Amino acid sequence: MRKHFSSRVLGAKRSAIRELLKLAERPEIISFSGGFPDPETFPHEEFAEIAAEEIRDNYRDVLQYSTTEGSKTFRRGVSGWLKEQGIEASIDEILVTTASQQGLDLICKAFVDPADVIFCGLPTYLGAIQAFTLFQATKIGIPLEDDGMNLDVLEEEIGAARRGGKVLKGIYVIPDFQNPSGITMSLKKRERLLEIARREDLLIFEDNPYGHLRFSGEPIRSIYSLDDEGRVIMLVTFSKTLAAGLRLAVMLARGDAMDALVRVKQATDLCTSKLIQRLAARYIERYRFDLHLAEISRTYRRKKEAMIRALERYMPAEDGIRWTDPDGGLFVWMWLPEGIDTEEMLDRAIEEKVAYVPGAATHVDGGGANTLRLAFSLASEEDIDEGIRRLAEVVKREIAAKKREGVAT
Amino acid sequence: MRKHFSSRVLGAKRSAIRELLKLAERPEIISFSGGFPDPETFPHEEFAEIAAEEIRDNYRDVLQYSTTEGSKTFRRGVSGWLKEQGIEASIDEILVTTASQQGLDLICKAFVDPADVIFCGLPTYLGAIQAFTLFQATKIGIPLEDDGMNLDVLEEEIGAARRGGKVLKGIYVIPDFQNPSGITMSLKKRERLLEIARREDLLIFEDNPYGHLRFSGEPIRSIYSLDDEGRVIMLVTFSKTLAAGLRLAVMLARGDAMDALVRVKQATDLCTSKLIQRLAARYIERYRFDLHLAEISRTYRRKKEAMIRALERYMPAEDGIRWTDPDGGLFVWMWLPEGIDTEEMLDRAIEEKVAYVPGAATHVDGGGANTLRLAFSLASEEDIDEGIRRLAEVVKREIAAKKREGVAT
Repeated sequence: MRKHFSSRVLGAKRSAIRELLKLAERPEIISFSGGFPDPETFPHEEFAEIAAEEIRDNYRDVLQYSTTEGSKTFRRGVSGWLKEQGIEASIDEILVTTASQQGLDLICKAFVDPADVIFCGLPTYLGAIQAFTLFQATKIGIPLEDDGMNLDVLEEEIGAARRGGKVLKGIYVIPDFQNPSGITMSLKKRERLLEIARREDLLIFEDNPYGHLRFSGEPIRSIYSLDDEGRVIMLVTFSKTLAAGLRLAVMLARGDAMDALVRVKQATDLCTSKLIQRLAARYIERYRFDLHLAEISRTYRRKKEAMIRALERYMPAEDGIRWTDPDGGLFVWMWLPEGIDTEEMLDRAIEEKVAYVPGAATHVDGGGANTLRLAFSLASEEDIDEGIRRLAEVVKREIAAKKREGVAT
Repeated sequence: MRKHFSSRVLGAKRSAIRELLKLAERPEIISFSGGFPDPETFPHEEFAEIAAEEIRDNYRDVLQYSTTEGSKTFRRGVSGWLKEQGIEASIDEILVTTASQQGLDLICKAFVDPADVIFCGLPTYLGAIQAFTLFQATKIGIPLEDDGMNLDVLEEEIGAARRGGKVLKGIYVIPDFQNPSGITMSLKKRERLLEIARREDLLIFEDNPYGHLRFSGEPIRSIYSLDDEGRVIMLVTFSKTLAAGLRLAVMLARGDAMDALVRVKQATDLCTSKLIQRLAARYIERYRFDLHLAEISRTYRRKKEAMIRALERYMPAEDGIRWTDPDGGLFVWMWLPEGIDTEEMLDRAIEEKVAYVPGAATHVDGGGANTLRLAFSLASEEDIDEGIRRLAEVVKREIAAKKREGVAT
């Protein structure tokens, strides 16, 4: 059978997170691994009511095929909602996708030939790495600083790739509370990133799954809204703001780019479920989405604070141990002393009944062995405290073992 | 922007059907174009009840991410349902997909490198052509006979492609009530097709969207159930048997093939909506799916009979005019005299307020200009009669015009 495999699938690996999710399903494990939203944030009473009503009264419509672009009712609702946040996107600039992972798939299909270059963060979202890898892109990682991607390094890497004769396609960024680092890109850097993209004629793929889950600081304008050339393609998923099980997102793009994306979407899955689109559309129409977002942001703030408190309380005061303190989103990012391998350490953590995502999987340069991602979204505040306590024990033992090894060798 | 497009998107065109669907939306047009199921066949009362219940009682589960393979509850239900029809597929041999168009996308991702050969019917499903084209496959069309693909021609074409140094990957077939032709492949041909695939070491991609919508004749074994080598990958959508708006299908595959398909599914959209999977699972669990299928098959039988009656009544008795009379599915296929171009004729048909799919779009060899597809699934029996009457008038005028042209030149 393997001789029939495409070259793209021979180059793709199973995801580490995916195998982890299986472990994390065991009830005795406190899992900080998968980026699962807290199910208590899903507006289920409202959805139950809307679903019954729409299926009963509008079944001829909602159970039928949708257009490839998506339901006009839904896109109109999204357009209005985005406008409140300073993002101008007409219905024609909105393509409904089967969640944002599909958005990444469509971007690759529309723009990426094998060996084309995509620049991305070090670290960056694992699912994006998987999509880019499947389409055989050359992924060049750019280190992150406290205010986002290091743009000096980006410019150097662009120059080096050009000199290497590569076809450069775009830059993939998650400006707000990045996955996995929790880092937010400053306005200044967003503006400069756009300037670089203009000068170098690159596209920007702006992924925004968490932007509406801000719990401190002021919102920063999206790169999409700074752009007047149609150079930025933006992904806005409802997986975290409404419910992951909807598999619903939108993709903002203009002109020819939108035309290409619609064509590849059609060959990919014809259309996204109209029932699902209508659930979200009616919710946005009838309820105060802004209040819902404010409420779930408070939930995640409490959980983040519980995690930071626990980290401060339990983690050893060792050189090289530090973590981010994000203004939103679902993740805290953590560095351990050089020499610790968080992939190897995971076995011990699982034994101690706590799980996380080893950072190496989120680094396209093979680095990040001493880093890890902690999702604070799913566990209760009590479990966050206990889970971090367990993790700190594992970390302490790991450091002690490394020190012994150091003496022994 | 176009300079950024991938080579695959530069080679893909917008679908003719897709543009047609827009026209067909105008209420004054009787449309036989899109393969839309009759919405009265959607079990909406049951879905409304299940949706409300599942969202209210199991929101923590159904509104959360699913595993990439799909919900076990749903796959267990599907496995049992398939068994009743002589198809043995364990849970591990079932991958849930976001409808069967995604199944085709995953097949291409897992198996097709640019220029690899896929054999398919002349004509074949337009969406499959689009998927294969997007992945830059070489599509070789094999003429259909009354009992399915002409396997002598297939063997010749396999030989020719091998001599041409091509990499041969597989054969795409829709054995039951094929889209667009309505033709069913005989058991004898299914067995011989599998033998050819074995001898030539090719995969078979068996697409079965309509197999459960049989309204006359006896069911014929699927190629998947004849295969004991894991050489056949089967797609079974619920778009026609439950509701198109669910965007739900399963893909049957074994061993390494399943492993590859799961990996590419993960990078494609992570998972299919668990809410949607659960709707279908509970429906299969609680209700008599077999009786539902028998009932909707009767609906389509009545509509097919109305269409055949109208064709017999209105179409001119002209050499070269004929049509298929399918035992199931949604489509009648029609030939007009050589020299008539159904793509050009469509303008006149739309003027007369009737629509169909021109056959050329479903031919990978550039042929089929004088053919067309008539979907009897959506229109009422009255509209079928009136629509075919209108179409017959258009055809008569077209033939008369061609005859005048013939005299004039």
